[in-house]
Amino acid sequence: MALIVQKYGGSSVANTERILHVARRVAARAREGSQIVVTVSAMGDTTDDLIALAQQVTERPSDREMDLLLSTGEIVSCTLLAMALRDLGVPARSFTGWQAGILTNDTHGRARVLSIDPARLRASLDRGEVAVVAGFQGITTETDVTTLGRGGSDTTAVALAAALGAGCCDIYTDVEGVYTCDPRLEPQARKLREISYEEMLEMASQGARVMHPRAVELGAIHGIPILVASSMKDAPGTLIHGDCGMEPVNKVRGISHDTDIAKVTVLGVPDRPGAAAELFACLGGSNLAADTIVQNASAHGPATDLTFTVGVADLRRALEAITPVAVEMGASGVITDDRLGKLSIVGTGVLNTPGYAPRMFKALADAGINIELITTSEIRITCIIDQGRIPDAVRVLHATFELERAESTPG
Amino acid sequence: MALIVQKYGGSSVANTERILHVARRVAARAREGSQIVVTVSAMGDTTDDLIALAQQVTERPSDREMDLLLSTGEIVSCTLLAMALRDLGVPARSFTGWQAGILTNDTHGRARVLSIDPARLRASLDRGEVAVVAGFQGITTETDVTTLGRGGSDTTAVALAAALGAGCCDIYTDVEGVYTCDPRLEPQARKLREISYEEMLEMASQGARVMHPRAVELGAIHGIPILVASSMKDAPGTLIHGDCGMEPVNKVRGISHDTDIAKVTVLGVPDRPGAAAELFACLGGSNLAADTIVQNASAHGPATDLTFTVGVADLRRALEAITPVAVEMGASGVITDDRLGKLSIVGTGVLNTPGYAPRMFKALADAGINIELITTSEIRITCIIDQGRIPDAVRVLHATFELERAESTPG
Repeated sequence: MALIVQKYGGSSVANTERILHVARRVAARAREGSQIVVTVSAMGDTTDDLIALAQQVTERPSDREMDLLLSTGEIVSCTLLAMALRDLGVPARSFTGWQAGILTNDTHGRARVLSIDPARLRASLDRGEVAVVAGFQGITTETDVTTLGRGGSDTTAVALAAALGAGCCDIYTDVEGVYTCDPRLEPQARKLREISYEEMLEMASQGARVMHPRAVELGAIHGIPILVASSMKDAPGTLIHGDCGMEPVNKVRGISHDTDIAKVTVLGVPDRPGAAAELFACLGGSNLAADTIVQNASAHGPATDLTFTVGVADLRRALEAITPVAVEMGASGVITDDRLGKLSIVGTGVLNTPGYAPRMFKALADAGINIELITTSEIRITCIIDQGRIPDAVRVLHATFELERAESTPG
Repeated sequence: MALIVQKYGGSSVANTERILHVARRVAARAREGSQIVVTVSAMGDTTDDLIALAQQVTERPSDREMDLLLSTGEIVSCTLLAMALRDLGVPARSFTGWQAGILTNDTHGRARVLSIDPARLRASLDRGEVAVVAGFQGITTETDVTTLGRGGSDTTAVALAAALGAGCCDIYTDVEGVYTCDPRLEPQARKLREISYEEMLEMASQGARVMHPRAVELGAIHGIPILVASSMKDAPGTLIHGDCGMEPVNKVRGISHDTDIAKVTVLGVPDRPGAAAELFACLGGSNLAADTIVQNASAHGPATDLTFTVGVADLRRALEAITPVAVEMGASGVITDDRLGKLSIVGTGVLNTPGYAPRMFKALADAGINIELITTSEIRITCIIDQGRIPDAVRVLHATFELERAESTPG
């Protein structure tokens, strides 16, 4: 019997009416004879509301307490969905993260799944029940409740699919799939039928807000195909998978962008081994991840400039962490710019195929858009530009790479 | 080092402002050098709000799902209190029912505590932390979450006090203690300094809404003194305990009352062994507890009348359960009255001491109040009367037994 893991996001279960809608969808699949595990996010703004409550009692909530507090949001939605399914005559049972056997490390607030013991879920499925699992949460070996951080429910779904050997993991959300770029910026944006894990990772980590990169990564590691589709419409979604009968490589698949990026430049860093390591170690110590890092070659002397980007929200903490270290090591200054955006073209082979990079840079130049920083990966070329020019830049690149044109049938 | 268990009810933690107030109280006790375990109810109307959500998705929520849903309310309040304590510089840690080691049977919705493994709480206390425990909940051996039903957080508190060998269990609530009668009905009602477990049990089960009888029972079994006091004021409360340096027995301690009582009379029940058992077995099968049961002696033939009371809210279900059985056994009919109230005088020895019963009945008669049913226990005499006359009756009996007079100093 086919085993399917489905995930419904917060907007898909924002109120009891939508929960009933989700229940009807799940019930229809169950009646087709599939075994189903469903994982859900918290209803609508629940998580934000709980955070607001915590902030009313303390400015610095303990991560451990916060995790236990936030875990209640997904428990509420999963019990309600189980009740709604039973009301439709579909046997169903809800499970918290710990009841579902999801063991994590103890990094509260952004725990990593260590293993899943699926025995209880299997027993539930074997009884003919739909197993409804609270997303976003797990438990440590010390039986403390943890949460998985941003995108946590996506991670729960893919991890469950891997642990249960499911044939597919369906992520139902408020978008219909993965687009060539943000459809709100470019009306000609086209929904992709399929995309590789690697391309999706680059799209996601560069700001396409469909799915969290961690979940995609987990899918890639375990070879779980992930379908991203709308929870409201019956339209076909985008299949994220590995083995391609895909269309020819060496093509730009999509454009991703992100705003609210700040750039920090440490001027005159002494050009000695370990200087960069020291600077980034102090960021890591403050739980800050530098995003794009560029070190200019030191052609002109014993010092160099080192630039990195962080989210604007983290800029103050980044400066507090890095400034004393920069002073200590004899850097000549720290300067920032907090009105930047990030823009990437993503596609297998874009970097190694001649032509893509210069076409991207020229298109931006023709539109009068200045490039602050450039970084690349195997399948991505990223430019940091003025935040205000992001919408123009997305449209220009979408046209340049003819992304509005329909995909050829994969062969 | 003294170990104290405290419980704060839903109105005491109704919002974050009150949670901060509770945190300051707990912090003050912690700074005096006591080890403290605090258990809390859900914030204000949270439980009702969760029930309403469930009712929006189904008319018949599964008891198991409902328990898991409702358990989130107490988790929210206990994490917030732990955060607030930490913010005051008091080390604190929250625990769900299962984390606190509270094992129950699997009677969802009104589970009984089977045992408590206090190892985790002890470790927390030994680290110098205040342990904040979510009330009202536990876990079965199958790791399903249960709730303890009405008064569940009181039960959690007393059970924890017993398991940890605490010297006292403090129940902080929105009343200042146990009164001689409901102060809203009789302004001269007097707060009792102390009361025995047995008297408190009769007060509670007859409708004094201070504490649930289960918790009092548990206190009696384990010999845990229970202090009932206000969470808002620093006024002395009422100590519920067993060994009395109490004032002379054979005195009415208080008057309790309850409204919304319905009476069911099964007419012409065949006077054979087992008839009553059959009738009440079918009530039990519907999870209904008959409250007061009176069987008239069958002086006049082979049939008798059997009367019992239930809460008005349960009347329809009671009739559905009992009518087919009554018909089956050849009873001649079932009649009901759903506008009754219950009134008791409570005090060690009231039944065995001549004079109390007739004084009670005469006082009610003098006030023109008709008595529908009378039942008694060792320390209680109860009359079922017209619901509309309850306030008069309470005032009349308060005056008759001179309950406004101050207690003599216990010696």
